[in-house]
Amino acid sequence: MDILSIAGILIAVVAIAGGQWFEGGALGSLIQGAAFVIVVGGTLGAVMLQNPMPVFLHGLKMVRWVVTTPFIDHRAVIAQITEWADAARREGVLALENRLPHCRDAFTRNGLQMLVDGFEADRIREAMDTEIAAFETRQRLAARIWESAGGYAPTIGILGAVLGLIHVMENLSDPSRLGSGIAVSFVATIYGVGLANVVFLPIAGKLRTLIQEQVTQRELVLDGLLGIANGENPKLIETRLQGYMR
Amino acid sequence: MDILSIAGILIAVVAIAGGQWFEGGALGSLIQGAAFVIVVGGTLGAVMLQNPMPVFLHGLKMVRWVVTTPFIDHRAVIAQITEWADAARREGVLALENRLPHCRDAFTRNGLQMLVDGFEADRIREAMDTEIAAFETRQRLAARIWESAGGYAPTIGILGAVLGLIHVMENLSDPSRLGSGIAVSFVATIYGVGLANVVFLPIAGKLRTLIQEQVTQRELVLDGLLGIANGENPKLIETRLQGYMR
Amino acid sequence: MDILSIAGILIAVVAIAGGQWFEGGALGSLIQGAAFVIVVGGTLGAVMLQNPMPVFLHGLKMVRWVVTTPFIDHRAVIAQITEWADAARREGVLALENRLPHCRDAFTRNGLQMLVDGFEADRIREAMDTEIAAFETRQRLAARIWESAGGYAPTIGILGAVLGLIHVMENLSDPSRLGSGIAVSFVATIYGVGLANVVFLPIAGKLRTLIQEQVTQRELVLDGLLGIANGENPKLIETRLQGYMR
Amino acid sequence: MDILSIAGILIAVVAIAGGQWFEGGALGSLIQGAAFVIVVGGTLGAVMLQNPMPVFLHGLKMVRWVVTTPFIDHRAVIAQITEWADAARREGVLALENRLPHCRDAFTRNGLQMLVDGFEADRIREAMDTEIAAFETRQRLAARIWESAGGYAPTIGILGAVLGLIHVMENLSDPSRLGSGIAVSFVATIYGVGLANVVFLPIAGKLRTLIQEQVTQRELVLDGLLGIANGENPKLIETRLQGYMR
Amino acid sequence: MDILSIAGILIAVVAIAGGQWFEGGALGSLIQGAAFVIVVGGTLGAVMLQNPMPVFLHGLKMVRWVVTTPFIDHRAVIAQITEWADAARREGVLALENRLPHCRDAFTRNGLQMLVDGFEADRIREAMDTEIAAFETRQRLAARIWESAGGYAPTIGILGAVLGLIHVMENLSDPSRLGSGIAVSFVATIYGVGLANVVFLPIAGKLRTLIQEQVTQRELVLDGLLGIANGENPKLIETRLQGYMR
Repeated sequence: MDILSIAGILIAVVAIAGGQWFEGGALGSLIQGAAFVIVVGGTLGAVMLQNPMPVFLHGLKMVRWVVTTPFIDHRAVIAQITEWADAARREGVLALENRLPHCRDAFTRNGLQMLVDGFEADRIREAMDTEIAAFETRQRLAARIWESAGGYAPTIGILGAVLGLIHVMENLSDPSRLGSGIAVSFVATIYGVGLANVVFLPIAGKLRTLIQEQVTQRELVLDGLLGIANGENPKLIETRLQGYMR
Repeated sequence: MDILSIAGILIAVVAIAGGQWFEGGALGSLIQGAAFVIVVGGTLGAVMLQNPMPVFLHGLKMVRWVVTTPFIDHRAVIAQITEWADAARREGVLALENRLPHCRDAFTRNGLQMLVDGFEADRIREAMDTEIAAFETRQRLAARIWESAGGYAPTIGILGAVLGLIHVMENLSDPSRLGSGIAVSFVATIYGVGLANVVFLPIAGKLRTLIQEQVTQRELVLDGLLGIANGENPKLIETRLQGYMR
Repeated sequence: MDILSIAGILIAVVAIAGGQWFEGGALGSLIQGAAFVIVVGGTLGAVMLQNPMPVFLHGLKMVRWVVTTPFIDHRAVIAQITEWADAARREGVLALENRLPHCRDAFTRNGLQMLVDGFEADRIREAMDTEIAAFETRQRLAARIWESAGGYAPTIGILGAVLGLIHVMENLSDPSRLGSGIAVSFVATIYGVGLANVVFLPIAGKLRTLIQEQVTQRELVLDGLLGIANGENPKLIETRLQGYMR
Repeated sequence: MDILSIAGILIAVVAIAGGQWFEGGALGSLIQGAAFVIVVGGTLGAVMLQNPMPVFLHGLKMVRWVVTTPFIDHRAVIAQITEWADAARREGVLALENRLPHCRDAFTRNGLQMLVDGFEADRIREAMDTEIAAFETRQRLAARIWESAGGYAPTIGILGAVLGLIHVMENLSDPSRLGSGIAVSFVATIYGVGLANVVFLPIAGKLRTLIQEQVTQRELVLDGLLGIANGENPKLIETRLQGYMR
Repeated sequence: MDILSIAGILIAVVAIAGGQWFEGGALGSLIQGAAFVIVVGGTLGAVMLQNPMPVFLHGLKMVRWVVTTPFIDHRAVIAQITEWADAARREGVLALENRLPHCRDAFTRNGLQMLVDGFEADRIREAMDTEIAAFETRQRLAARIWESAGGYAPTIGILGAVLGLIHVMENLSDPSRLGSGIAVSFVATIYGVGLANVVFLPIAGKLRTLIQEQVTQRELVLDGLLGIANGENPKLIETRLQGYMR
């Protein structure tokens, strides 16, 4: 559970709405169904058109990470790998077979399996590198739907504002309604810029960071397993893996 | 048939037009022949000037992918390659000759042919890498015409708006026509920003994703064929290729 | 002779001018000497300051490619190289000496010469890779003057517009001249945005594509000559080179 | 203690405020609580949402570097490493053991330890490269919070301005308050653009430079230690390391 | 002495000022102390805050290159290296010792020294590659201060304009001073956009080109010296080095 995300979005919304209220602006005038439909619908449509179904759904699911950051504990992983290295040193890689069932992470188990199957280091590296690369590509692709949403929202917002202005201009004859008309049309800009900068782009940024951390951890695991496959000194493996944290 | 694309563009258009109508704006005022000619003609011209004929035509053809996403089934490809690996293991690569006629994909057949002709792995890798790289370059180049259209449209739209404003400014003397004049000139912006964000850029984004998937599949095929050429254990080949999906 | 370029620029200009005229705007008001001097002069000056003399001149010369696209025929080159490979296979590389005079392209002849001189493949690769890299860098550098022109023009155009507005603001006292004054100042924007999006940027884009194609062809030639130097099977060389087109 | 940073921010603030005052503008009107809350709160919120807790805190801590630039003395490091190389040449790497306690930098000591432990050069390179890469990634990630703050601030500022304008437009009826209302709403833009361009972005830029220098120094250390591990001529090591400064 | 730079800046300034004058605008109204202080001071401050002292000073010094382009003569360098190669071929590398004193360029002399000292090619390559990389990084870093100045100036200019507008809005009551007030505030934009597009960015662009040329020449020198160290055929070395120019 990542408090920072919750806190961040709260602070942003409270600050903006509060500042506006503090300035004497009626918050009510910031609620415009039409503007909301235009901005959210337009952005959603653009993002849907831009992405194949699986990518789109994967990207939507990802957003849960923003509140419940996937727990990544390098320390534990390193400890476990060092333990495996010791065992392999003493009793040979076959001794790791009984660790397989206890290994929850599919990627790690997969690599451990290849180790136990006695494939040589280079083969393992090829197979696992391929998997890491494919994993990274797929994750980034899905995360990017938030980035593109952040790119579309403001322009759609401006588009909504211009639509509103056109509407206003056509009724210039009645100046009394001029101001409020312009006010209404500006709300679309608020929605577009606000959603992009306070929701979409930060989410995209956070997902990028989290994906990078996951990739790093997978590289750490691969690095350790290769060390074991090469029968390296466990102490050396540990030193090297700690480099990923230092 | 990719429903998401259709749904996306529908949602976007309905949301924007609906929002406008909901706001009480007359949709009729959004239809301006002059603005349309300026934005579409200007953008088309810029894109034509920017691209050599073959690239331009190839890019136009590509757009069909957006609705009928080329069906990419990694699973089937992996199954087939594993089957070939088994056969080659048992009866030697020559045994793959009778698979050639059944292989529909030109790239795969081409590689299989080299395999059967008994070229060594490195030669095959060189030839197929070259082909993959050239394929990727050419596809990206063609897809980019949509990206550039998305880049030109908004500025041409603004250009159209400014043209309209100039026209308006010259008739300031008659204020009654002021508002509607400005309204008209704003429509060009709507067209430019709308076309770019609801059509051109999403199409460009989707094509980019699809090209990446096609390239990945070709790398998967190459990876598998090289495994066969190196007489690798079919089980290992399968494990490694699955890494592309996991 | 590339019709697409001519057509493109024609369509763009006709569409924009036509749309304006169709909208009832007087085209005459779009012709402003002062605005033209500011935008073209300012952009030209910035590009000149940005580039060393040789780069600047080379970039200007390049623009002819836009209308007369350098004819690049991969097919012919591949046929020729395959023929050389056969000859070399049969009679040894020395047999290629009499092909030298018929080889018009300096780069190819240069490589063929090294081949005949009996340098080993790695030496040839080093020398020709260096030349390709240097060629690409120099061409891109020169082509970039159009990109930068496309970057400067719109801002200079806005600068011109602001200059005009300042002029207008100083004479607010006389409202009758207000509108036309603003109209005049807007023309600078039209020139800046128009030149950039309908001329400079598309030209830059097309040059980038053409340079890429030239580089690809040189890599194709190098690839083929190395194949010959390594005494590879002509059939294999042909297969590999065709990968550049497929 | 980096005077340039202090001087820079002073000059910027004095120039802007001074220029305004010089122009006859009342500085008081530039102080708006509401605008400040909106811009700072909105930006802070967006940055918090974008980053995981550790990255966010690390980034905040980093800002101290801007005033107290971490002192990086390549000369001293090179001298020290050359001295080690001489010793290792004369008495073997074990002779370096007694240098360990005097070595303050964790990274260097860590490498020196591996050297003394007699690991071969390639192992040391792997371990230390991993550490440098991880260090660089982590630092850049943290420094980027300032870059994103610089990206969010101006848009949030515009958002604040639009909020203000909406407020103004609703009270068009009372023209007397119009001007001051617009003035107030513009202040949010000033805050957003000012904070981004005079504080956030320059800080981000400086951190990027400092991180690069630290990475360079670590590469220099690694380069030197590998030279010692390979028993290279101390003179050669020194020459090569000096290349990092020349 | 680079006339193009002088000509460029002259043309730009004359075109803009001339165009304005031609349009009937009083040039005097373009001279505003306050706006100048805001734009130049704000930009200078931001750049100072962004850069460590040595980088900042180095970047300032670099600007002299814009007028006196460092003379780079590939032809002469190649001739000299070929001459060295011949000598080395005939009398051995030691024969190059007496060339050392005549070699003015520190980088070249440094490499020649290593050659004479009889270090093997790989060692020389490592040492000189390191030096080239460090040189490039340092130069780019310093040149980038002009790029960032070009990035800050326009936004600071807008900031100045908004400051002016605020000032104007507060005095809406007196419409007579309205226009001139707006005019004054626009001048800041002119300064910001003008300085960035007619001075800072072109300078940054030219420095980038010049740095690239210097790096290329150093790579050419390294390439040649390695050829000598490997005792390659002088004719081959010459052919390869000419590839850098062709």
